[in-house]
Amino acid sequence: MIIKELKGLANGANIINLYGWVDNVRDHGGLTFIDLRDFDSSIQLIFDKESKITKTVKNEFYIMVSGVFNQRDKNLINKKTLFGDVEILIESLTIINESKTLPFQIEDGIDTDESIRLKYRYLDLRRNEMKQNIIARSNTFKSIRNIMNQLDILEIDTPTLIKSTPEGAKDFLVPSRKSPGSFYALPQSPQMYKQLFMMSGFPNYYQIAKCYRDEDSRKDRQPEFTQLDLEFSNGSPDLVKENIEIIVQHIFKEAFDLKIPIPFKTITYNESMTLYGTDKPDLRIKETISDITDVFAQTEIKFIKEIIEDSGKVLSLFTQKSLSRKEIDLLDEKIKNLGSNGLGWFKVTDNEISGPLAKILLPNEKQELIAFGDGLIVFQAGNLYEVGKYMDILRQEIFKDRVEDSTSFLWVDDFPYFEIENGSLQPSHHPFTAPKDTDIFKNNPNESKALHYDLVLNGVELGSGSQRINDPQVQKLVLEKWGLTEEDIGERFGWFIEALSYGTPQHAGFAIGIDRLVAEILKQPSIRDVIPFPKTQSGMDPLTEAPSLINESDLAEYNLRYIEDEQ
Amino acid sequence: MIIKELKGLANGANIINLYGWVDNVRDHGGLTFIDLRDFDSSIQLIFDKESKITKTVKNEFYIMVSGVFNQRDKNLINKKTLFGDVEILIESLTIINESKTLPFQIEDGIDTDESIRLKYRYLDLRRNEMKQNIIARSNTFKSIRNIMNQLDILEIDTPTLIKSTPEGAKDFLVPSRKSPGSFYALPQSPQMYKQLFMMSGFPNYYQIAKCYRDEDSRKDRQPEFTQLDLEFSNGSPDLVKENIEIIVQHIFKEAFDLKIPIPFKTITYNESMTLYGTDKPDLRIKETISDITDVFAQTEIKFIKEIIEDSGKVLSLFTQKSLSRKEIDLLDEKIKNLGSNGLGWFKVTDNEISGPLAKILLPNEKQELIAFGDGLIVFQAGNLYEVGKYMDILRQEIFKDRVEDSTSFLWVDDFPYFEIENGSLQPSHHPFTAPKDTDIFKNNPNESKALHYDLVLNGVELGSGSQRINDPQVQKLVLEKWGLTEEDIGERFGWFIEALSYGTPQHAGFAIGIDRLVAEILKQPSIRDVIPFPKTQSGMDPLTEAPSLINESDLAEYNLRYIEDEQ
Repeated sequence: MIIKELKGLANGANIINLYGWVDNVRDHGGLTFIDLRDFDSSIQLIFDKESKITKTVKNEFYIMVSGVFNQRDKNLINKKTLFGDVEILIESLTIINESKTLPFQIEDGIDTDESIRLKYRYLDLRRNEMKQNIIARSNTFKSIRNIMNQLDILEIDTPTLIKSTPEGAKDFLVPSRKSPGSFYALPQSPQMYKQLFMMSGFPNYYQIAKCYRDEDSRKDRQPEFTQLDLEFSNGSPDLVKENIEIIVQHIFKEAFDLKIPIPFKTITYNESMTLYGTDKPDLRIKETISDITDVFAQTEIKFIKEIIEDSGKVLSLFTQKSLSRKEIDLLDEKIKNLGSNGLGWFKVTDNEISGPLAKILLPNEKQELIAFGDGLIVFQAGNLYEVGKYMDILRQEIFKDRVEDSTSFLWVDDFPYFEIENGSLQPSHHPFTAPKDTDIFKNNPNESKALHYDLVLNGVELGSGSQRINDPQVQKLVLEKWGLTEEDIGERFGWFIEALSYGTPQHAGFAIGIDRLVAEILKQPSIRDVIPFPKTQSGMDPLTEAPSLINESDLAEYNLRYIEDEQ
Repeated sequence: MIIKELKGLANGANIINLYGWVDNVRDHGGLTFIDLRDFDSSIQLIFDKESKITKTVKNEFYIMVSGVFNQRDKNLINKKTLFGDVEILIESLTIINESKTLPFQIEDGIDTDESIRLKYRYLDLRRNEMKQNIIARSNTFKSIRNIMNQLDILEIDTPTLIKSTPEGAKDFLVPSRKSPGSFYALPQSPQMYKQLFMMSGFPNYYQIAKCYRDEDSRKDRQPEFTQLDLEFSNGSPDLVKENIEIIVQHIFKEAFDLKIPIPFKTITYNESMTLYGTDKPDLRIKETISDITDVFAQTEIKFIKEIIEDSGKVLSLFTQKSLSRKEIDLLDEKIKNLGSNGLGWFKVTDNEISGPLAKILLPNEKQELIAFGDGLIVFQAGNLYEVGKYMDILRQEIFKDRVEDSTSFLWVDDFPYFEIENGSLQPSHHPFTAPKDTDIFKNNPNESKALHYDLVLNGVELGSGSQRINDPQVQKLVLEKWGLTEEDIGERFGWFIEALSYGTPQHAGFAIGIDRLVAEILKQPSIRDVIPFPKTQSGMDPLTEAPSLINESDLAEYNLRYIEDEQ
């Protein structure tokens, strides 16, 4: 039996075959006390003086005990635990399995190195805080299944040994033994297959899917991640957004007992960049960027003058908080590390303005800046889409103690179809995204918008989706504008364009990163803390030591050979 | 709107923006009739003579129409379809997407080659019989989620880029770009990870998991398949079986509206082999194998005499049905193809016995065989475990018209731990299976039983499970008996034996093949018919042409090179 089942037993009841781990052993004046722990409860065991049990049990031994249920004296009740008012007087104890000495204690708040915790992940998951993370993840799955049932959305699964396709990151490859030299790829997402379901006539689709990206190590990414993937036939962005709001609201309520209001606010990409310098702003910070370009219309500050003449902007943040010179230098260093030329700032104290450039300000400039009131004005001058990232960091740093304790959801839409990167057009999203206007896309692609929408939670991109292209000609056009040759298009996407050619309905969809969602709700520092068996940033598993070397002869079965790097 | 939403509309109601596929176009005396089809309904559209709509629509065009809802004349009602009593007088029609000429018709019972159906799978899935298969699969998922919730079994997911381990079939490998020369493997099952969850203290676990086996082409296997995977802490085989029965009964009821009685019957491996010649018997056939060795105690038939002296058996099946010589020859051929020396048989007609060996039968032998009554006795002589497979085939062939139209579930347990194959001990199941008795296992492994149990449905192995080893010493011993060296054990399973060493509870589990389950319930010829996008027997996908060749330069990123076979 398990501890929970003891609830309500009468004093003196016989307890038979109760299982659990030894959480703690204490000796007090000839009596031995053991805290027995199982999945969701713990209880105190007492060995009486005459007990014949002489075995030495230690922490994390898995044991089975029998004994008598005993109500504690009122002055011995431990009110902190569920079974703090009772104990078991032990008559027999069987050790099911012993435990070696632990590499770390099974308790919350340990400061053990993460690589050790991952090497002994099965012990790490015995710690209550980690166990609660995994339960929350499981509850998230459950709440998703439940709301999908309520919304009549079909769970259908998609293949995971697929054809290699480009989605902005590298595929993991799987060599075929039966067709040596040929490879499957692991899916970066079920994107094309879920679209095929819509072409097949299914009204909708969902799947909690494992997806794979062989990316260079970036902060808090995993080579395999878990995604709630959805698609709706006859779907529009508005229909998808409405459904996602209902789904997210349901997950918060059922899995986390949190109420969140819907609908979520929507802003355009341009508004987001203008107000926050980023397309994933954290709205728990209320302060926004101010465009103070007009202040400097006649400026004699040379670099500002040049930037404004070049259609640039002067973007500022104002805080009443008084920052020290050291704090200002830290901000300067932070944005310089990201590529900024440096922090511009003015300090206003009692109607006096100071700062490196204060002396060359014109009187009207001084006047307008002083009008902000006492405090600090920081600024960056340049193209909004280039200096935005510095403004974003400055906003987060300066106002980090003003982050509201709330949950801030936000839709961002009306994205550009292409971004200019190093002088050439780069697609912002995957090539199945429908352009907002096909004519503009055709004639003026860099002016074209995409029917793409992101969902942002507390400054984290939680998911994204789009209206899909359902016209084979438009699909071909988009791939051409992506820069693919006719031959490339045929070889890599010919089958998909063909599939679009048999009466394809409109469709739109979405995907939510589940690891990210759970980590964000639980305020965990890393998605690794909400994944049962995650990998390190370099893609290693310290527990099993995967990936591992394989024999040359095994490799030969695939007609492959390992080639040493040339020195 | 969709067709279903028309239900209950009044005659003359306006229909706006109804979507669907053109299922059929007919011209009758100036009127055009279109059957409009969507996911779950269809309705007749009528174009009146004055209609300005001149566009030519063809089958599978995806269209949007508006018009007026019209009750049909009583004598025009089509009672075969849901909306057979109504039609829509069309006022406008918009083609959302045209369709190219179809490679096959969107209708049931087509005899198109499967490779064409798979190349155009998205069209194949528009056909009602295929659509119903996928819906049944989706309903199976749903019913599993529901019963798991009811049973409080936690959904937890396991990694799919893992360390390569042997489970009786070959791993698919995934080369690591970050650690050139190292490989992940795709899991053949989540076996070790679900055991780790039990070690972590979770009470139970389930997952609908994708599993991978790079097997040589066998009948009706897929390189990736879908498995309901379960594990129970403190679990015993009985507890697992009880849960599986509840789960399977629930799936049948909720997803297929079929009632099946539980508990299922259990027989031992030896009983199964003795009665049916196989460990996965189809109990919808009532007839069983008879051991008629005793009849031949004094026999003068030389090969039978020798086999009996060598502890062999004479195993027979009796049918009252009169088989022709040609039918008997076909049976003979069938088992010879599998390796049998040939079919033994006696025919009894009006108390006379005939057959190739009838003349050298002793009088008492004749008497005992004639006592079976008029009909055919077929037999095989030899070791039960060697000739069983021929008896199994003979039983299925001879009684194929006597298969009951029922659902026959059966537990088979008490398996041997090892099978003798080509003179050496081969493990029957994976090496995490607990021996029934550790002492017997240690001293006499070929006499040892495994705490393994299979679930058989209509002669198909639907799933299997076992009590797991929870003692690190026993785990090590089993791997040694498996034939692994100390070094192999350390390198491949050292981490797992270590994990068992920190107080591991008893645990047991199970896995059910979902593709197989759905195919069996729907009586489909292949699991390919219940998988949305399956691969051919050679592991190819005719739709995307995966797996595909990749560039030498892409391969070089993994420090790999393709080596041509030597001629």
